[in-house]
Amino acid sequence: MKRRKAGGGYEGWLKYSLIEDAGMREAYAEKCSRLAVVGDSPVMASARRELKLALSGLLGIVPEESELPDRGPLLVAGVPDRSQLFEPLAAAGDLSGLGEEGYVIESSSDGRVYLAGLTDRAVLYAVFGFIRLLQNGEDLEEIRIRETPANGLRMLNHWDNLDGSVERGYAGKSLFFNNGEITDDLERIEDYARLLASCGINAAAINNVNVHKQETLLITDAYLPEVSRIAAIFRSCGIRLFLSVNYASPMEIGGLNTADPLNADVAAWWKSAVGNVYRHIPDFGGFLVKADSEFRPGPFTYGRNHADGANLLADALAPFGGLVVWRCFVYNCLQDWRDRSTDRARAAYDHFMPLDGDFRDNVLLQIKNGPMDFQVREPVSPLLGGMKRTNQLLELQITQEYTGQQRHLCYLVPQWKEVIEFDTRARGEGSLVARVVDGSLFGRRLGGMAAVANVGDAPNWTGHLLAQANLYGYARLAWNPGLSSEEIAREWVRMTFGRDWEAERVILQMLLDSYNIYEAYTAPLGVGWMVNPDHHYGPNVDGYEYAKWGTYHYADRDGIGVDRTVATGTGFAGQYHSPNSERYESRESCPDELLLFFHHVPYKHRLNSGKTVIQHIYDSRFEGAERAAELLTLWESIGERIDEELYGQVRQRLLHQREHACEWRDILNTYFYRKSGIADEHGRMIY
Amino acid sequence: MKRRKAGGGYEGWLKYSLIEDAGMREAYAEKCSRLAVVGDSPVMASARRELKLALSGLLGIVPEESELPDRGPLLVAGVPDRSQLFEPLAAAGDLSGLGEEGYVIESSSDGRVYLAGLTDRAVLYAVFGFIRLLQNGEDLEEIRIRETPANGLRMLNHWDNLDGSVERGYAGKSLFFNNGEITDDLERIEDYARLLASCGINAAAINNVNVHKQETLLITDAYLPEVSRIAAIFRSCGIRLFLSVNYASPMEIGGLNTADPLNADVAAWWKSAVGNVYRHIPDFGGFLVKADSEFRPGPFTYGRNHADGANLLADALAPFGGLVVWRCFVYNCLQDWRDRSTDRARAAYDHFMPLDGDFRDNVLLQIKNGPMDFQVREPVSPLLGGMKRTNQLLELQITQEYTGQQRHLCYLVPQWKEVIEFDTRARGEGSLVARVVDGSLFGRRLGGMAAVANVGDAPNWTGHLLAQANLYGYARLAWNPGLSSEEIAREWVRMTFGRDWEAERVILQMLLDSYNIYEAYTAPLGVGWMVNPDHHYGPNVDGYEYAKWGTYHYADRDGIGVDRTVATGTGFAGQYHSPNSERYESRESCPDELLLFFHHVPYKHRLNSGKTVIQHIYDSRFEGAERAAELLTLWESIGERIDEELYGQVRQRLLHQREHACEWRDILNTYFYRKSGIADEHGRMIY
Repeated sequence: MKRRKAGGGYEGWLKYSLIEDAGMREAYAEKCSRLAVVGDSPVMASARRELKLALSGLLGIVPEESELPDRGPLLVAGVPDRSQLFEPLAAAGDLSGLGEEGYVIESSSDGRVYLAGLTDRAVLYAVFGFIRLLQNGEDLEEIRIRETPANGLRMLNHWDNLDGSVERGYAGKSLFFNNGEITDDLERIEDYARLLASCGINAAAINNVNVHKQETLLITDAYLPEVSRIAAIFRSCGIRLFLSVNYASPMEIGGLNTADPLNADVAAWWKSAVGNVYRHIPDFGGFLVKADSEFRPGPFTYGRNHADGANLLADALAPFGGLVVWRCFVYNCLQDWRDRSTDRARAAYDHFMPLDGDFRDNVLLQIKNGPMDFQVREPVSPLLGGMKRTNQLLELQITQEYTGQQRHLCYLVPQWKEVIEFDTRARGEGSLVARVVDGSLFGRRLGGMAAVANVGDAPNWTGHLLAQANLYGYARLAWNPGLSSEEIAREWVRMTFGRDWEAERVILQMLLDSYNIYEAYTAPLGVGWMVNPDHHYGPNVDGYEYAKWGTYHYADRDGIGVDRTVATGTGFAGQYHSPNSERYESRESCPDELLLFFHHVPYKHRLNSGKTVIQHIYDSRFEGAERAAELLTLWESIGERIDEELYGQVRQRLLHQREHACEWRDILNTYFYRKSGIADEHGRMIY
Repeated sequence: MKRRKAGGGYEGWLKYSLIEDAGMREAYAEKCSRLAVVGDSPVMASARRELKLALSGLLGIVPEESELPDRGPLLVAGVPDRSQLFEPLAAAGDLSGLGEEGYVIESSSDGRVYLAGLTDRAVLYAVFGFIRLLQNGEDLEEIRIRETPANGLRMLNHWDNLDGSVERGYAGKSLFFNNGEITDDLERIEDYARLLASCGINAAAINNVNVHKQETLLITDAYLPEVSRIAAIFRSCGIRLFLSVNYASPMEIGGLNTADPLNADVAAWWKSAVGNVYRHIPDFGGFLVKADSEFRPGPFTYGRNHADGANLLADALAPFGGLVVWRCFVYNCLQDWRDRSTDRARAAYDHFMPLDGDFRDNVLLQIKNGPMDFQVREPVSPLLGGMKRTNQLLELQITQEYTGQQRHLCYLVPQWKEVIEFDTRARGEGSLVARVVDGSLFGRRLGGMAAVANVGDAPNWTGHLLAQANLYGYARLAWNPGLSSEEIAREWVRMTFGRDWEAERVILQMLLDSYNIYEAYTAPLGVGWMVNPDHHYGPNVDGYEYAKWGTYHYADRDGIGVDRTVATGTGFAGQYHSPNSERYESRESCPDELLLFFHHVPYKHRLNSGKTVIQHIYDSRFEGAERAAELLTLWESIGERIDEELYGQVRQRLLHQREHACEWRDILNTYFYRKSGIADEHGRMIY
């Protein structure tokens, strides 16, 4: 495969630089001197190409390709029942539980290494798994790895528009679209698909959930021939392509005068439209739908509910094995800020809980991690673990809308880990979100994770080079939620920067601290939305305080926070299972970091940490800004160990972050000092 | 002249509807039954066409054209020394003091009416003056009007860009530009020029003071052939065309590597460029320049001052009689909000006072009415009356950037009257701004007014129909600053809606109250900038509080306002002549409506009105919103008297204003209640 744009971060974590440790390199080279890749489907072709590319880069060798069953070192990749080469492997253990995507990597006593799975896709994952071992310097002797993904669906949502813009994109323009057309830069799509496949992504919606006029046509012959070229590239990497659809399509492009989900003509129109999509893309994944949300059309227009809406599409897709991914991001976005009885946090639960059990088997509800909208800190959505008879997909946001827009470093895996390890108590202790969404807790056939991608046509894909770790991290977590933030970060660092212990130590520290640092200077104690409206960048304490979006902190001269208790507030705390509901209901037991999400308290209220709320605000702002400055110092300390261009890229962003963190510190401190009149205990400068 | 877009407000105040009062109409018709327009220059052709159009519309007659010196009714228009028809007029009085633009309208004992001046332009003004008499129902018997404009330059600034956008435009797209080209809708330009000429505008810059890349080329052959077509239309209506120029033109389009005003090559380049402009437009007015302001290039780059900068252009223009209009809107727009020592209000004075006397005679400094930027309420700029040896042009803003964006009704003439009647005390009592800018106070040859236009390609020119009164009112005030707000409004109402006493009474009340009403619900006591950033629409108390623009109110839990005193503040109050400086310096003598502009005071500070500051904030918000609602009621009360389409247009805007005024009321009240904790004395609803 041609690599036209080497350097600058383009290779991402598939940077196959020569392993510097000669001993290790030679040991690997010996194992890999002969290669047998069994099969020649597009997926197997991808696997073969990738293996050869990696071996050439990492080890400097061109392995001899051989399928002879003779002795000697051999790297064998394929589906075992297709070649007798796998006989020793088959004899060694049971492969039947691997499913469609699980794989094994096993060495045999005679020095061979098997990369095997029951499908081509599984073999591709085995190949990428093997490459990761090499990149991470793992020992290949007596290796015995068995991996199956926890989640069936491991999806990306791209919020890309046909004009090339990316909603909430911070890494340039769209990879898929340009000036109203599908991109003809398919080579870049190929490289993107490799990156995704390498960490296990198996589904991707390529267009924005806000489906505008032109994008409505993506499911028609106007665009399908071109879309199918992207789908083919995805297919060769084990990824199914999804499209976001406009719920009003039957009217906007179908010539009907209704989009009522219970109308027979509407159903017939969707069936026909879906059939046409599958004629172009036989393995089409299905539809992603944002309906009745933020001015998008939906079933409410016709007095129908979301189950009616989703099932309509599900019935059209079912014969082809297609899925409906239906977003639960539904709330009143024309709220009057004067109205304190309406609580946006309640909305998803209030809308969807009554429909639990009413959705078709090929529908998944896509539920944002929190009840609001990807704020720095939110409690977990109570809908996760609320619904028991519905397929659920956890929606995360990789693109850093509220978390620094890829100008600030913010490694998000620690945030996501908190979400998936949250114990919903839906079926007693141990009812983790991870088990809700993988389907195991309630025995659902379908489940998984989806996340809003953070990529664009920036040379390094993500703008901030270190933001690649979020894309990688999300995918790895979707495959195996049991991985720790640090394990994932370490893999990514080694694959991206090579094995340099000092650099690795420093970058790991930067990544792992960054979310807490960002939270420290931005969003105190679970309050969100203190950002500039529309673009959401930079501090603005009242930015959303008098808005129509249901986003308030109610800070006055005495205190701050939203009373969401059952006793005196909006009742949102009651949407959780016991004992979470009680824990949030009480000021005393509510975790400090969520206190202001659930309670309105005086500035002098004492936290469990022992500090007052106001002193916490001051302290964390000062500390956060200081630590943001340290990120730069840390990076500079390894300047000589990093590729010069990559070093410079990241340094520029860290310089900005250091300055911008001071802006956050000073504006928030000044705002709260002016309002509360309470001085900082340590007498630091507040303007 | 063809009138292709009748109705909907397109005719503006040149709406020549048949006068309903038959007696009056016939009396007029008798006077106007024969017409003699002497001369056939383009300006005289305009005068003739306009007279015939007006007489046809207002009186339903087609006057006989005759230059015979016989007896009988005759309406005579022209320059007296060109025809013996004027002999009786010349005998009656001295016309020599009329200057180039003054005119007389006189009836003779034999029933003739003379419309005369010393130039064609003056005759055109006489014609429009005469038409205004008819529209206003004035008696033509024994009429003896002598009018000379107070201000030599009566200018409009259009902030229009070549792409068709209008910076701070609220009435559609540009009249002059469209999609990178000069408009080919010259008929609309003709009608616009008629509107301007009718109220005495004699100069107009057609492009934005922020001169972007493409607009820099307007002074080159790339655009001049097309620009000259607009100039020709303007010329036929007595208007000189100006262009805004990019100070860096010698570099950006001239191929030089500097724009240093003291560099000989730069001077030569400008001379050549100017010469070329005059080849295309022999009566070209000159250049309007925004330099060293808000990221525009200027002489500071080269260590030169604004006099160096302006004089460079002045020397190039002087041989052709061209002018330089140089804006004084220069300040630090990258201020740190933490820095309380810098005061944007001081900037214009600090920059330009030291240069007083250093500018060429054909330079006019264009000075905004206030020291900030067109806020609802500001003190008068101390530069007006500060400089004594420099030509000054008062800059007003007709386009309602901070005053409701032509969605709210805000008749601005009362605001402007306060400015021009402000006594600067520069030469003792009576040193009104009006006398500063007309040149009389300091014996300056050049002076006048400029204002940012509020027009666009909206069918009714200004979006809000009633906003036409601001365009008309500005022009009338520039001609005669002695006219009262009410006189101007009455003229406009009669000319626009016809003579209906009840409608006139109501619309006059609406217009005359509207500025105070708008101020009441928006900007309390001289504080500005409580608006949403960028677009400047709608309430946002902290919208500019942490910005880089030098725009702060410093509200905290105890008080609000900016200390601009000499004793303890930024010293801005000291930029005024005595006793204004002392009046502003003292909290007690500072006018209530400017208190927070000059002082930081506690919320419980008692105003001269007897109210506390906080109670004033509450009271005026409640009262303002109530009175905004009354505007709608008033309009509805005359619904049956107004053309249905015009009625509907205005009603839609008043409906929005009523609602939006409540948003202003509630957000400001809530903000200050939350901050101060002081309850409304009357217990009204604050959220």
